[in-house]
Amino acid sequence: MHRKSNVNSPRALGMVVACGLFGAAVALPVAAQFSKPDSAVRYRQSVFNVMNNHMGRINTQLKSSTPNVQVIQTSAAVVDTMSKLPWDAFAPNTEFVANTNALPALFKNEAKIKELADKMQEEAVKLNAIAKAGDVKAVRTQFGALAKTCDNCHDDFRAK
Amino acid sequence: MHRKSNVNSPRALGMVVACGLFGAAVALPVAAQFSKPDSAVRYRQSVFNVMNNHMGRINTQLKSSTPNVQVIQTSAAVVDTMSKLPWDAFAPNTEFVANTNALPALFKNEAKIKELADKMQEEAVKLNAIAKAGDVKAVRTQFGALAKTCDNCHDDFRAK
Repeated sequence: MHRKSNVNSPRALGMVVACGLFGAAVALPVAAQFSKPDSAVRYRQSVFNVMNNHMGRINTQLKSSTPNVQVIQTSAAVVDTMSKLPWDAFAPNTEFVANTNALPALFKNEAKIKELADKMQEEAVKLNAIAKAGDVKAVRTQFGALAKTCDNCHDDFRAK
Repeated sequence: MHRKSNVNSPRALGMVVACGLFGAAVALPVAAQFSKPDSAVRYRQSVFNVMNNHMGRINTQLKSSTPNVQVIQTSAAVVDTMSKLPWDAFAPNTEFVANTNALPALFKNEAKIKELADKMQEEAVKLNAIAKAGDVKAVRTQFGALAKTCDNCHDDFRAK
């Protein structure tokens, strides 16, 4: 996944300075994580794809009559990790990338988006902790709380 | 990233049983992580995209005269997590998905791919541990060792 050609390419390593919308909030003092707006969009879509897949894996277990706690725990840890990543990729100019589903309103409501993002990360941390404790019933409740935070953002800030 | 419509959709939650090529190796006793071959390809590409991005972030720091150890540590942890994920997504029939860069040979060399995958994960675990210790010179050496394992697979099993 990591080509030498990428490592050595100034294009890949960030000639475009992409200051994240939530740069301060997520404490990432890197000014150039993304080489161009397309890369930022692809990155955040990748993060959400992985997160969504692992939410699905947890949900499958929660619907099972014999839930596999180890699968829940592994996926909850991945979800927790993913929840921290996408925010600085909602960078200036990425609203103009053709295949993004992020609505223009997202880039005009920084305080609101930060609040929603913080809440989502908070619920993901809780899900991971609860999953580690192994109580499937508690996982189910917290899974719902986290899924709600996804909807909270999608309802207003993602194209239907 | 997680729509209610996905959670409740049998399509999203795996009507197609995708037994991973490395199912046993990665101890994921879930038979249906992917609803269809396209989803598996998108998932593994997402994982590699996130991994590649964070390898790039580490590399940027290693090239800096004032490397930010916290950025290296955060990204090394993400890389470690990502290194464990893509393997079961190299599932049967995913070699026929149009936009995959995985060559047909990958699906015919299970033992070799498992060896390469194990080695990559091993080097990623080491990178994470070394990053936590905070010795940038040691990180640089281990970063090279991990990047080599990426190339080892790409050289023979990914389309140029």
